[in-house]
Amino acid sequence: MLDQQYFLGIDGGGSKCKARLEDAHGNLLAETVAGPANPVRDYALAIASINEACQSVYKLARLPLEAMANTFLGMGLAGINLPHCRQAMLAWSHPFAGLNLSTDLHIACLGAHGSQNGAIVIVGTGSSAMVTQDNTSFEYGGHGFLLGDKGSGAWFGAQAVRWVLESFDGLAPTSHFTQALCQFAHCYSATALAEKYLSASPAQFAQFAPLIFDFAEQQDEVALALVREGANYLSALSRQLLHHQPSRLAFIGGLAERVKPWLDADIQQQVSCALQPPECGAVLLAKLPIKSLESAS
Amino acid sequence: MLDQQYFLGIDGGGSKCKARLEDAHGNLLAETVAGPANPVRDYALAIASINEACQSVYKLARLPLEAMANTFLGMGLAGINLPHCRQAMLAWSHPFAGLNLSTDLHIACLGAHGSQNGAIVIVGTGSSAMVTQDNTSFEYGGHGFLLGDKGSGAWFGAQAVRWVLESFDGLAPTSHFTQALCQFAHCYSATALAEKYLSASPAQFAQFAPLIFDFAEQQDEVALALVREGANYLSALSRQLLHHQPSRLAFIGGLAERVKPWLDADIQQQVSCALQPPECGAVLLAKLPIKSLESAS
Repeated sequence: MLDQQYFLGIDGGGSKCKARLEDAHGNLLAETVAGPANPVRDYALAIASINEACQSVYKLARLPLEAMANTFLGMGLAGINLPHCRQAMLAWSHPFAGLNLSTDLHIACLGAHGSQNGAIVIVGTGSSAMVTQDNTSFEYGGHGFLLGDKGSGAWFGAQAVRWVLESFDGLAPTSHFTQALCQFAHCYSATALAEKYLSASPAQFAQFAPLIFDFAEQQDEVALALVREGANYLSALSRQLLHHQPSRLAFIGGLAERVKPWLDADIQQQVSCALQPPECGAVLLAKLPIKSLESAS
Repeated sequence: MLDQQYFLGIDGGGSKCKARLEDAHGNLLAETVAGPANPVRDYALAIASINEACQSVYKLARLPLEAMANTFLGMGLAGINLPHCRQAMLAWSHPFAGLNLSTDLHIACLGAHGSQNGAIVIVGTGSSAMVTQDNTSFEYGGHGFLLGDKGSGAWFGAQAVRWVLESFDGLAPTSHFTQALCQFAHCYSATALAEKYLSASPAQFAQFAPLIFDFAEQQDEVALALVREGANYLSALSRQLLHHQPSRLAFIGGLAERVKPWLDADIQQQVSCALQPPECGAVLLAKLPIKSLESAS
Protein backbone atom coordinates (compact mmCIF):
# COMPACT_ATOMS: atom_id res chain seq x y z
CA MET A 1 0.00 0.00 0.00
CA LEU A 2 2.87 2.37 0.74
CA ASP A 3 4.22 2.22 -2.82
CA GLN A 4 0.90 3.59 -4.15
CA GLN A 5 0.06 7.24 -4.76
CA TYR A 6 -3.11 8.69 -3.24
CA PHE A 7 -5.09 11.88 -3.76
CA LEU A 8 -7.03 13.47 -0.89
CA GLY A 9 -9.50 16.28 -1.38
CA ILE A 10 -10.70 18.48 1.48
CA ASP A 11 -13.58 20.95 1.32
CA GLY A 12 -13.48 23.06 4.50
CA GLY A 13 -16.34 25.40 5.36
CA GLY A 14 -17.99 27.19 8.24
CA SER A 15 -20.24 24.30 9.23
CA LYS A 16 -18.30 21.18 8.20
CA CYS A 17 -15.20 19.74 6.60
CA LYS A 18 -15.52 17.01 3.95
CA ALA A 19 -12.66 14.69 2.95
CA ARG A 20 -12.51 12.39 -0.09
CA LEU A 21 -9.67 9.92 -0.68
CA GLU A 22 -8.96 8.41 -4.10
CA ASP A 23 -6.23 6.16 -5.46
CA ALA A 24 -4.06 6.98 -8.47
CA HIS A 25 -6.67 5.46 -10.82
CA GLY A 26 -9.44 7.75 -9.54
CA ASN A 27 -11.16 5.03 -7.50
CA LEU A 28 -12.99 6.32 -4.41
CA LEU A 29 -11.44 4.78 -1.26
CA ALA A 30 -13.38 6.65 1.44
CA GLU A 31 -15.27 9.82 2.26
CA THR A 32 -15.84 11.45 5.64
CA VAL A 33 -17.19 14.59 7.29
CA ALA A 34 -15.74 16.41 10.33
CA GLY A 35 -16.49 19.66 12.14
CA PRO A 36 -16.21 23.32 11.07
CA ALA A 37 -13.07 24.32 9.15
CA ASN A 38 -13.22 28.06 8.46
CA PRO A 39 -9.72 29.32 9.36
CA VAL A 40 -10.84 32.98 9.35
CA ARG A 41 -13.42 32.37 12.07
CA ASP A 42 -11.39 29.89 14.18
CA TYR A 43 -7.94 28.77 13.01
CA ALA A 44 -7.32 26.21 15.79
CA LEU A 45 -10.74 24.61 15.27
CA ALA A 46 -10.17 24.48 11.50
CA ILE A 47 -6.84 22.67 11.93
CA ALA A 48 -8.42 20.26 14.43
CA SER A 49 -11.32 19.50 12.07
CA ILE A 50 -8.97 19.00 9.10
CA ASN A 51 -6.76 16.64 11.13
CA GLU A 52 -9.82 14.72 12.32
CA ALA A 53 -11.15 14.40 8.74
CA CYS A 54 -7.76 13.21 7.46
CA GLN A 55 -7.30 10.59 10.14
CA SER A 56 -10.81 9.20 9.88
CA VAL A 57 -10.72 8.98 6.06
CA TYR A 58 -7.57 6.78 6.17
CA LYS A 59 -9.13 4.67 8.90
CA LEU A 60 -12.30 4.21 6.81
CA ALA A 61 -10.13 3.30 3.80
CA ARG A 62 -8.24 0.79 6.02
CA LEU A 63 -4.97 2.53 5.17
CA PRO A 64 -2.18 3.25 7.68
CA LEU A 65 -1.56 6.96 8.43
CA GLU A 66 1.94 6.45 6.93
CA ALA A 67 0.18 6.46 3.52
CA MET A 68 -0.16 10.25 4.00
CA ALA A 69 3.50 10.52 2.96
CA ASN A 70 2.42 9.12 -0.45
CA THR A 71 -0.67 11.34 -0.67
CA PHE A 72 -1.13 14.62 -2.49
CA LEU A 73 -3.64 16.84 -0.68
CA GLY A 74 -5.88 19.37 -2.39
CA MET A 75 -7.70 21.63 0.04
CA GLY A 76 -10.23 24.39 -0.57
CA LEU A 77 -10.96 26.70 2.36
CA ALA A 78 -13.12 29.80 2.77
CA GLY A 79 -11.10 32.95 3.45
CA ILE A 80 -7.83 31.54 2.11
CA ASN A 81 -7.68 34.44 -0.39
CA LEU A 82 -7.08 36.77 2.59
CA PRO A 83 -3.28 37.11 2.93
CA HIS A 84 -3.10 36.62 6.72
CA CYS A 85 -5.28 33.52 6.49
CA ARG A 86 -3.25 32.04 3.62
CA GLN A 87 0.01 32.60 5.52
CA ALA A 88 -1.40 30.95 8.64
CA MET A 89 -2.55 27.86 6.69
CA LEU A 90 0.73 27.54 4.81
CA ALA A 91 2.48 27.41 8.20
CA TRP A 92 0.51 24.22 8.98
CA SER A 93 2.94 21.38 9.49
CA HIS A 94 1.41 18.48 7.52
CA PRO A 95 2.60 14.93 6.75
CA PHE A 96 1.58 14.86 3.07
CA ALA A 97 3.72 14.48 -0.08
CA GLY A 98 2.35 17.80 -1.29
CA LEU A 99 -0.35 20.35 -0.51
CA ASN A 100 -2.27 22.43 -3.00
CA LEU A 101 -4.20 25.11 -1.11
CA SER A 102 -6.94 27.17 -2.68
CA THR A 103 -10.33 28.71 -2.00
CA ASP A 104 -13.63 26.89 -1.42
CA LEU A 105 -14.74 28.72 -4.57
CA HIS A 106 -11.92 27.25 -6.66
CA ILE A 107 -12.55 23.61 -5.70
CA ALA A 108 -16.28 24.13 -6.26
CA CYS A 109 -15.46 25.44 -9.75
CA LEU A 110 -13.11 22.52 -10.51
CA GLY A 111 -15.77 20.07 -9.34
CA ALA A 112 -18.65 21.75 -11.16
CA HIS A 113 -16.90 21.51 -14.51
CA GLY A 114 -14.49 18.62 -14.00
CA SER A 115 -11.77 20.77 -15.49
CA GLN A 116 -9.89 24.03 -15.04
CA ASN A 117 -12.09 25.90 -17.49
CA GLY A 118 -15.46 27.11 -16.28
CA ALA A 119 -17.36 29.59 -14.18
CA ILE A 120 -19.50 29.28 -11.07
CA VAL A 121 -21.77 31.40 -8.94
CA ILE A 122 -22.18 30.10 -5.38
CA VAL A 123 -25.47 31.17 -3.77
CA GLY A 124 -25.95 29.72 -0.33
CA THR A 125 -25.67 31.46 3.04
CA GLY A 126 -23.10 33.68 1.29
CA SER A 127 -22.51 34.45 -2.37
CA SER A 128 -19.47 34.68 -4.63
CA ALA A 129 -18.37 33.94 -8.17
CA MET A 130 -15.31 32.69 -10.04
CA VAL A 131 -14.13 31.91 -13.52
CA THR A 132 -11.04 29.78 -14.17
CA GLN A 133 -9.28 29.51 -17.50
CA ASP A 134 -6.23 27.28 -17.71
CA ASN A 135 -3.92 28.69 -15.07
CA THR A 136 -5.70 31.95 -14.37
CA SER A 137 -8.69 32.67 -12.16
CA PHE A 138 -10.86 35.72 -11.66
CA GLU A 139 -13.06 36.16 -8.59
CA TYR A 140 -16.08 38.44 -8.27
CA GLY A 141 -18.48 39.25 -5.45
CA GLY A 142 -18.20 37.69 -2.03
CA HIS A 143 -16.70 40.31 0.36
CA GLY A 144 -18.56 38.84 3.35
CA PHE A 145 -21.94 39.27 5.00
CA LEU A 146 -21.46 42.83 6.30
CA LEU A 147 -20.13 44.36 3.07
CA GLY A 148 -21.19 42.11 0.21
CA ASP A 149 -22.59 38.62 -0.40
CA LYS A 150 -25.49 40.27 -2.25
CA GLY A 151 -28.17 37.87 -3.47
CA SER A 152 -27.17 35.29 -0.81
CA GLY A 153 -29.49 33.76 1.77
CA ALA A 154 -28.00 35.92 4.53
CA TRP A 155 -28.33 39.05 2.39
CA PHE A 156 -31.98 38.29 1.51
CA GLY A 157 -32.78 37.70 5.18
CA ALA A 158 -31.06 40.84 6.44
CA GLN A 159 -32.66 42.98 3.72
CA ALA A 160 -36.06 41.56 4.67
CA VAL A 161 -35.53 42.35 8.37
CA ARG A 162 -34.39 45.90 7.43
CA TRP A 163 -37.54 46.31 5.31
CA VAL A 164 -39.81 45.11 8.12
CA LEU A 165 -38.12 47.44 10.62
CA GLU A 166 -38.75 50.36 8.24
CA SER A 167 -42.36 49.25 7.84
CA PHE A 168 -42.83 49.44 11.63
CA ASP A 169 -41.64 53.06 11.34
CA GLY A 170 -44.20 53.71 8.59
CA LEU A 171 -41.38 54.23 6.07
CA ALA A 172 -41.89 51.11 3.92
CA PRO A 173 -45.02 49.24 2.82
CA THR A 174 -46.24 46.15 4.66
CA SER A 175 -47.53 43.01 2.92
CA HIS A 176 -48.54 39.43 3.63
CA PHE A 177 -44.82 38.65 3.46
CA THR A 178 -43.81 41.22 6.13
CA GLN A 179 -46.53 39.76 8.40
CA ALA A 180 -45.27 36.22 7.73
CA LEU A 181 -41.70 37.25 8.58
CA CYS A 182 -42.86 38.60 11.96
CA GLN A 183 -44.70 35.35 12.63
CA PHE A 184 -41.67 33.27 11.58
CA ALA A 185 -39.45 35.33 13.91
CA HIS A 186 -42.08 35.51 16.69
CA CYS A 187 -41.44 39.27 16.80
CA TYR A 188 -44.34 41.70 16.60
CA SER A 189 -42.60 45.04 17.23
CA ALA A 190 -39.56 46.85 15.87
CA THR A 191 -37.91 46.61 19.29
CA ALA A 192 -38.42 42.84 19.54
CA LEU A 193 -37.20 42.25 15.98
CA ALA A 194 -34.17 44.56 16.32
CA GLU A 195 -33.19 43.01 19.64
CA LYS A 196 -33.48 39.42 18.35
CA TYR A 197 -31.45 40.03 15.16
CA LEU A 198 -29.07 42.74 16.45
CA SER A 199 -26.08 40.41 16.17
CA ALA A 200 -27.60 37.38 14.43
CA SER A 201 -25.33 35.16 12.32
CA PRO A 202 -25.48 34.97 8.52
CA ALA A 203 -27.00 31.48 8.94
CA GLN A 204 -29.81 32.88 11.10
CA PHE A 205 -30.65 35.53 8.49
CA ALA A 206 -30.47 32.92 5.71
CA GLN A 207 -33.33 31.03 7.39
CA PHE A 208 -35.70 33.71 6.02
CA ALA A 209 -34.66 33.11 2.39
CA PRO A 210 -37.10 30.28 1.53
CA LEU A 211 -39.99 32.37 2.94
CA ILE A 212 -39.01 35.31 0.72
CA PHE A 213 -38.99 33.12 -2.40
CA ASP A 214 -42.31 31.46 -1.41
CA PHE A 215 -43.98 34.88 -1.23
CA ALA A 216 -42.26 36.21 -4.36
CA GLU A 217 -43.70 33.23 -6.24
CA GLN A 218 -47.13 34.33 -4.94
CA GLN A 219 -46.47 37.84 -6.35
CA ASP A 220 -46.17 39.52 -2.93
CA GLU A 221 -44.90 43.03 -3.78
CA VAL A 222 -42.34 43.28 -0.95
CA ALA A 223 -40.92 39.79 -1.53
CA LEU A 224 -40.82 40.49 -5.29
CA ALA A 225 -38.82 43.69 -4.73
CA LEU A 226 -36.29 41.84 -2.54
CA VAL A 227 -35.94 38.86 -4.90
CA ARG A 228 -35.59 41.07 -7.97
CA GLU A 229 -32.83 43.18 -6.36
CA GLY A 230 -30.85 40.10 -5.35
CA ALA A 231 -31.40 38.29 -8.66
CA ASN A 232 -30.46 41.39 -10.68
CA TYR A 233 -27.16 41.50 -8.82
CA LEU A 234 -26.54 37.78 -9.53
CA SER A 235 -27.35 38.32 -13.22
CA ALA A 236 -24.84 41.20 -13.35
CA LEU A 237 -22.28 39.02 -11.54
CA SER A 238 -22.87 36.24 -14.12
CA ARG A 239 -22.32 38.72 -16.95
CA GLN A 240 -18.87 39.57 -15.55
CA LEU A 241 -18.04 35.84 -15.62
CA LEU A 242 -19.38 35.38 -19.17
CA HIS A 243 -17.13 38.20 -20.45
CA HIS A 244 -14.30 35.69 -19.97
CA GLN A 245 -16.13 33.25 -22.29
CA PRO A 246 -15.96 30.21 -19.98
CA SER A 247 -16.86 26.82 -21.48
CA ARG A 248 -19.64 26.42 -18.87
CA LEU A 249 -21.42 28.44 -16.14
CA ALA A 250 -22.89 26.64 -13.10
CA PHE A 251 -24.94 27.94 -10.15
CA ILE A 252 -24.33 25.96 -6.97
CA GLY A 253 -25.24 26.25 -3.27
CA GLY A 254 -28.41 25.93 -1.23
CA LEU A 255 -30.25 28.82 -2.90
CA ALA A 256 -29.16 28.12 -6.52
CA GLU A 257 -32.37 26.38 -7.61
CA ARG A 258 -34.63 28.99 -6.02
CA VAL A 259 -32.84 31.94 -7.56
CA LYS A 260 -32.39 30.59 -11.11
CA PRO A 261 -35.94 31.38 -12.37
CA TRP A 262 -35.42 35.05 -11.36
CA LEU A 263 -32.20 35.57 -13.34
CA ASP A 264 -32.28 37.45 -16.65
CA ALA A 265 -33.57 35.11 -19.40
CA ASP A 266 -30.30 35.14 -21.37
CA ILE A 267 -28.34 34.20 -18.24
CA GLN A 268 -30.77 31.38 -17.35
CA GLN A 269 -30.19 29.86 -20.79
CA GLN A 270 -26.45 29.67 -20.21
CA VAL A 271 -26.56 28.02 -16.76
CA SER A 272 -25.49 24.34 -16.69
CA CYS A 273 -25.60 21.77 -13.88
CA ALA A 274 -22.59 21.17 -11.67
CA LEU A 275 -20.95 17.84 -12.64
CA GLN A 276 -19.45 16.98 -9.25
CA PRO A 277 -19.43 18.36 -5.68
CA PRO A 278 -16.59 20.55 -4.28
CA GLU A 279 -14.77 17.65 -2.54
CA CYS A 280 -14.28 16.05 -5.97
CA GLY A 281 -12.93 19.41 -7.15
CA ALA A 282 -10.49 19.27 -4.21
CA VAL A 283 -9.23 15.88 -5.48
CA LEU A 284 -8.72 17.47 -8.92
CA LEU A 285 -6.82 20.28 -7.17
CA ALA A 286 -4.59 17.64 -5.50
CA LYS A 287 -3.66 16.37 -8.96
CA LEU A 288 -2.65 19.81 -10.29
CA PRO A 289 0.98 20.96 -10.18
CA ILE A 290 1.47 22.69 -6.86
CA LYS A 291 0.61 26.41 -6.85
CA SER A 292 -0.30 26.24 -10.50
CA LEU A 293 -3.20 28.63 -10.21
CA GLU A 294 -2.55 32.36 -10.29
CA SER A 295 -5.30 34.69 -9.23
CA ALA A 296 -5.74 37.61 -11.57
CA SER A 297 -8.53 39.26 -9.62
CA MET B 1 -25.67 70.67 52.60
CA LEU B 2 -27.52 67.48 53.46
CA ASP B 3 -30.88 69.24 53.86
CA GLN B 4 -30.71 70.45 50.23
CA GLN B 5 -32.17 68.70 47.21
CA TYR B 6 -29.92 68.01 44.21
CA PHE B 7 -30.54 66.94 40.63
CA LEU B 8 -27.98 64.85 38.76
CA GLY B 9 -28.17 64.22 35.03
CA ILE B 10 -26.22 61.41 33.35
CA ASP B 11 -25.82 60.97 29.59
CA GLY B 12 -24.27 57.54 28.99
CA GLY B 13 -23.04 56.54 25.53
CA GLY B 14 -20.70 54.18 23.76
CA SER B 15 -17.65 56.42 24.03
CA LYS B 16 -18.23 58.42 27.23
CA CYS B 17 -20.49 59.16 30.16
CA LYS B 18 -21.27 62.78 31.09
CA ALA B 19 -22.60 63.86 34.49
CA ARG B 20 -24.09 67.25 35.44
CA LEU B 21 -25.05 68.16 39.00
CA GLU B 22 -27.43 71.04 39.78
CA ASP B 23 -28.99 72.34 42.98
CA ALA B 24 -32.73 72.79 43.49
CA HIS B 25 -32.56 76.29 41.99
CA GLY B 26 -31.04 75.04 38.72
CA ASN B 27 -27.52 76.29 39.52
CA LEU B 28 -24.73 74.24 37.97
CA LEU B 29 -22.56 72.73 40.74
CA ALA B 30 -20.21 70.54 38.65
CA GLU B 31 -19.86 68.62 35.39
CA THR B 32 -17.63 65.65 34.64
CA VAL B 33 -16.90 63.02 31.99
CA ALA B 34 -16.08 59.33 32.57
CA GLY B 35 -15.59 56.28 30.35
CA PRO B 36 -17.98 54.34 28.07
CA ALA B 37 -21.46 53.62 29.45
CA ASN B 38 -23.38 51.57 26.88
CA PRO B 39 -25.00 48.78 28.93
CA VAL B 40 -25.86 46.74 25.81
CA ARG B 41 -22.22 46.47 24.77
CA ASP B 42 -20.70 46.06 28.28
CA TYR B 43 -22.94 46.20 31.35
CA ALA B 44 -20.15 45.97 33.96
CA LEU B 45 -18.14 48.73 32.26
CA ALA B 46 -21.24 50.93 32.01
CA ILE B 47 -21.96 50.58 35.75
CA ALA B 48 -18.28 51.29 36.54
CA SER B 49 -18.28 54.42 34.34
CA ILE B 50 -21.54 55.67 35.84
CA ASN B 51 -20.24 55.13 39.40
CA GLU B 52 -17.00 56.91 38.49
CA ALA B 53 -18.88 59.86 36.96
CA CYS B 54 -21.16 60.14 40.03
CA GLN B 55 -18.32 60.08 42.54
CA SER B 56 -16.17 62.57 40.68
CA VAL B 57 -19.01 65.05 40.12
CA TYR B 58 -19.73 65.23 43.91
CA LYS B 59 -16.01 65.60 44.58
CA LEU B 60 -15.77 68.43 42.04
CA ALA B 61 -18.82 70.07 43.64
CA ARG B 62 -17.15 69.65 47.07
CA LEU B 63 -20.15 67.71 48.32
CA PRO B 64 -19.99 64.56 50.48
CA LEU B 65 -21.19 61.35 48.81
CA GLU B 66 -23.95 61.26 51.47
CA ALA B 67 -25.64 64.04 49.45
CA MET B 68 -26.57 61.30 46.93
CA ALA B 69 -29.38 60.32 49.33
CA ASN B 70 -30.88 63.80 48.69
CA THR B 71 -30.29 63.66 44.94
CA PHE B 72 -32.71 62.75 42.18
CA LEU B 73 -30.91 61.10 39.27
CA GLY B 74 -32.03 61.31 35.65
CA MET B 75 -30.12 58.98 33.37
CA GLY B 76 -30.34 58.47 29.62
CA LEU B 77 -28.63 55.39 28.21
CA ALA B 78 -28.40 53.88 24.74
CA GLY B 79 -30.19 50.53 24.45
CA ILE B 80 -32.35 51.01 27.53
CA ASN B 81 -35.44 50.54 25.35
CA LEU B 82 -34.42 46.87 24.96
CA PRO B 83 -36.28 44.93 27.68
CA HIS B 84 -33.30 42.84 28.88
CA CYS B 85 -31.13 45.96 29.12
CA ARG B 86 -33.79 47.94 30.99
CA GLN B 87 -34.25 45.08 33.49
CA ALA B 88 -30.50 44.85 34.08
CA MET B 89 -30.17 48.60 34.73
CA LEU B 90 -33.21 48.69 37.05
CA ALA B 91 -31.48 45.98 39.11
CA TRP B 92 -28.62 48.45 39.77
CA SER B 93 -28.39 49.11 43.48
CA HIS B 94 -27.97 52.93 43.72
CA PRO B 95 -27.77 55.33 46.66
CA PHE B 96 -30.00 58.07 45.20
CA ALA B 97 -33.35 59.43 46.43
CA GLY B 98 -34.86 58.47 43.08
CA LEU B 99 -33.87 57.31 39.63
CA ASN B 100 -35.56 58.19 36.36
CA LEU B 101 -34.18 55.98 33.63
CA SER B 102 -34.73 56.61 29.95
CA THR B 103 -33.05 56.47 26.55
CA ASP B 104 -30.19 58.65 25.32
CA LEU B 105 -32.70 59.80 22.70
CA HIS B 106 -35.19 60.99 25.33
CA ILE B 107 -32.71 63.11 27.31
CA ALA B 108 -31.38 64.57 24.04
CA CYS B 109 -34.97 65.53 23.16
CA LEU B 110 -35.65 67.06 26.59
CA GLY B 111 -32.40 69.02 26.33
CA ALA B 112 -32.93 70.15 22.74
CA HIS B 113 -36.29 71.71 23.54
CA GLY B 114 -36.03 72.41 27.28
CA SER B 115 -39.41 70.79 27.68
CA GLN B 116 -41.35 67.56 27.18
CA ASN B 117 -42.77 68.67 23.85
CA GLY B 118 -40.57 68.43 20.79
CA ALA B 119 -38.95 66.19 18.23
CA ILE B 120 -35.35 65.31 17.43
CA VAL B 121 -33.36 63.43 14.84
CA ILE B 122 -29.94 62.27 16.06
CA VAL B 123 -27.42 61.83 13.24
CA GLY B 124 -23.99 60.87 14.49
CA THR B 125 -22.27 57.50 14.30
CA GLY B 126 -25.80 56.06 14.50
CA SER B 127 -29.19 57.59 13.74
CA SER B 128 -32.58 57.63 15.42
CA ALA B 129 -35.56 59.90 15.99
CA MET B 130 -38.08 60.72 18.69
CA VAL B 131 -41.03 62.93 19.37
CA THR B 132 -42.34 63.58 22.90
CA GLN B 133 -45.66 65.13 23.72
CA ASP B 134 -46.57 65.59 27.37
CA ASN B 135 -46.31 62.07 28.76
CA THR B 136 -46.12 60.13 25.53
CA SER B 137 -43.16 59.43 23.28
CA PHE B 138 -42.82 57.91 19.83
CA GLU B 139 -39.52 56.56 18.53
CA TYR B 140 -38.57 56.00 14.90
CA GLY B 141 -35.50 54.65 13.17
CA GLY B 142 -32.44 53.48 15.06
CA HIS B 143 -32.46 49.62 15.05
CA GLY B 144 -28.63 49.50 15.17
CA PHE B 145 -25.77 49.51 12.67
CA LEU B 146 -26.43 46.09 11.10
CA LEU B 147 -30.17 46.53 10.50
CA GLY B 148 -30.90 50.24 10.49
CA ASP B 149 -29.28 53.55 11.48
CA LYS B 150 -29.79 54.71 7.88
CA GLY B 151 -28.38 58.14 7.11
CA SER B 152 -25.88 57.86 10.00
CA GLY B 153 -22.11 58.21 9.71
CA ALA B 154 -21.64 54.44 10.07
CA TRP B 155 -24.31 53.77 7.43
CA PHE B 156 -22.79 56.26 4.98
CA GLY B 157 -19.34 54.70 5.49
CA ALA B 158 -20.51 51.10 5.10
CA GLN B 159 -22.57 51.95 2.00
CA ALA B 160 -19.52 53.66 0.50
CA VAL B 161 -17.30 50.63 1.17
CA ARG B 162 -19.99 48.35 -0.35
CA TRP B 163 -20.11 50.60 -3.43
CA VAL B 164 -16.32 50.57 -3.83
CA LEU B 165 -16.23 46.76 -3.49
CA GLU B 166 -18.85 46.50 -6.26
CA SER B 167 -16.82 48.91 -8.38
CA PHE B 168 -13.77 46.62 -8.08
CA ASP B 169 -16.04 43.87 -9.49
CA GLY B 170 -17.02 46.13 -12.39
CA LEU B 171 -20.60 46.24 -11.09
CA ALA B 172 -20.75 49.90 -9.99
CA PRO B 173 -19.22 53.08 -11.42
CA THR B 174 -15.98 54.52 -10.06
CA SER B 175 -15.41 58.23 -9.44
CA HIS B 176 -12.94 60.63 -7.84
CA PHE B 177 -14.71 59.80 -4.57
CA THR B 178 -14.23 56.02 -4.86
CA GLN B 179 -10.52 56.66 -5.55
CA ALA B 180 -10.28 58.99 -2.54
CA LEU B 181 -11.92 56.38 -0.30
CA CYS B 182 -9.29 53.81 -1.32
CA GLN B 183 -6.53 56.32 -0.56
CA PHE B 184 -8.12 57.22 2.80
CA ALA B 185 -8.33 53.50 3.69
CA HIS B 186 -4.91 52.66 2.16
CA CYS B 187 -6.63 49.78 0.33
CA TYR B 188 -6.21 49.39 -3.42
CA SER B 189 -7.94 46.04 -4.04
CA ALA B 190 -11.29 44.47 -3.14
CA THR B 191 -9.46 41.86 -1.04
CA ALA B 192 -7.53 44.48 0.96
CA LEU B 193 -10.65 46.62 1.53
CA ALA B 194 -12.88 43.65 2.44
CA GLU B 195 -10.27 42.26 4.83
CA LYS B 196 -9.69 45.61 6.58
CA TYR B 197 -13.40 46.40 7.07
CA LEU B 198 -14.74 42.82 7.46
CA SER B 199 -15.59 43.43 11.12
CA ALA B 200 -14.93 47.15 11.49
CA SER B 201 -16.85 49.08 14.14
CA PRO B 202 -19.57 51.63 13.38
CA ALA B 203 -17.11 54.34 14.49
CA GLN B 204 -14.54 53.15 11.92
CA PHE B 205 -17.11 53.30 9.11
CA ALA B 206 -18.30 56.72 10.31
CA GLN B 207 -14.79 58.09 9.65
CA PHE B 208 -15.62 58.03 5.92
CA ALA B 209 -18.68 60.28 6.34
CA PRO B 210 -16.94 63.70 6.06
CA LEU B 211 -15.19 62.52 2.87
CA ILE B 212 -18.53 61.52 1.34
CA PHE B 213 -20.05 64.94 2.07
CA ASP B 214 -16.92 66.73 0.79
CA PHE B 215 -17.24 64.96 -2.56
CA ALA B 216 -21.02 65.33 -2.74
CA GLU B 217 -20.53 69.08 -2.34
CA GLN B 218 -18.17 68.88 -5.36
CA GLN B 219 -20.96 67.10 -7.33
CA ASP B 220 -19.18 63.70 -7.45
CA GLU B 221 -21.87 61.35 -8.82
CA VAL B 222 -21.15 58.43 -6.47
CA ALA B 223 -20.98 60.61 -3.36
CA LEU B 224 -24.14 62.42 -4.48
CA ALA B 225 -26.03 59.12 -4.83
CA LEU B 226 -24.97 58.04 -1.32
CA VAL B 227 -25.77 61.39 0.31
CA ARG B 228 -29.16 61.65 -1.42
CA GLU B 229 -30.19 58.15 -0.33
CA GLY B 230 -29.26 58.86 3.30
CA ALA B 231 -30.78 62.35 3.32
CA ASN B 232 -34.01 61.13 1.71
CA TYR B 233 -34.38 58.60 4.52
CA LEU B 234 -33.79 61.32 7.15
CA SER B 235 -36.38 63.56 5.44
CA ALA B 236 -38.90 60.70 5.53
CA LEU B 237 -38.04 60.07 9.19
CA SER B 238 -38.59 63.78 9.93
CA ARG B 239 -42.00 63.65 8.23
CA GLN B 240 -43.07 60.86 10.60
CA LEU B 241 -42.11 63.09 13.54
CA LEU B 242 -43.90 66.14 12.09
CA HIS B 243 -47.15 64.14 11.77
CA HIS B 244 -47.29 64.43 15.56
CA GLN B 245 -47.14 68.25 15.22
CA PRO B 246 -44.32 68.82 17.72
CA SER B 247 -43.64 72.40 18.85
CA ARG B 248 -40.06 72.15 17.53
CA LEU B 249 -37.84 69.77 15.48
CA ALA B 250 -34.07 69.70 16.10
CA PHE B 251 -31.27 67.79 14.34
CA ILE B 252 -28.40 66.92 16.67
CA GLY B 253 -25.24 64.77 16.55
CA GLY B 254 -21.91 64.97 14.79
CA LEU B 255 -23.33 64.76 11.25
CA ALA B 256 -26.37 67.06 11.77
CA GLU B 257 -24.84 70.19 10.20
CA ARG B 258 -23.44 68.28 7.19
CA VAL B 259 -26.72 66.55 6.40
CA LYS B 260 -29.11 69.50 6.86
CA PRO B 261 -28.51 71.11 3.42
CA TRP B 262 -29.45 67.80 1.75
CA LEU B 263 -32.84 67.43 3.45
CA ASP B 264 -36.03 68.22 1.55
CA ALA B 265 -36.52 72.01 1.47
CA ASP B 266 -39.74 71.95 3.51
CA ILE B 267 -38.04 69.87 6.22
CA GLN B 268 -35.00 72.21 6.33
CA GLN B 269 -37.31 75.15 7.01
CA GLN B 270 -38.77 73.44 10.07
CA VAL B 271 -35.46 72.47 11.71
CA SER B 272 -34.53 74.50 14.82
CA CYS B 273 -31.34 74.54 16.90
CA ALA B 274 -31.03 72.39 20.02
CA LEU B 275 -31.31 74.62 23.12
CA GLN B 276 -29.19 72.52 25.49
CA PRO B 277 -27.05 69.35 25.36
CA PRO B 278 -28.32 65.90 26.45
CA GLU B 279 -26.83 66.05 29.96
CA CYS B 280 -29.06 69.10 30.65
CA GLY B 281 -31.96 67.00 29.35
CA ALA B 282 -30.96 64.33 31.86
CA VAL B 283 -31.26 66.91 34.67
CA LEU B 284 -34.76 67.77 33.38
CA LEU B 285 -35.53 64.03 33.43
CA ALA B 286 -34.37 63.91 37.08
CA LYS B 287 -37.00 66.55 37.88
CA LEU B 288 -39.89 64.65 36.25
CA PRO B 289 -42.16 62.37 38.29
CA ILE B 290 -40.54 58.93 38.25
CA LYS B 291 -41.56 56.73 35.29
CA SER B 292 -43.79 59.46 33.95
CA LEU B 293 -42.97 58.77 30.31
CA GLU B 294 -44.86 56.07 28.48
CA SER B 295 -43.53 54.88 25.17
CA ALA B 296 -46.21 54.52 22.52
CA SER B 297 -43.88 53.29 19.81
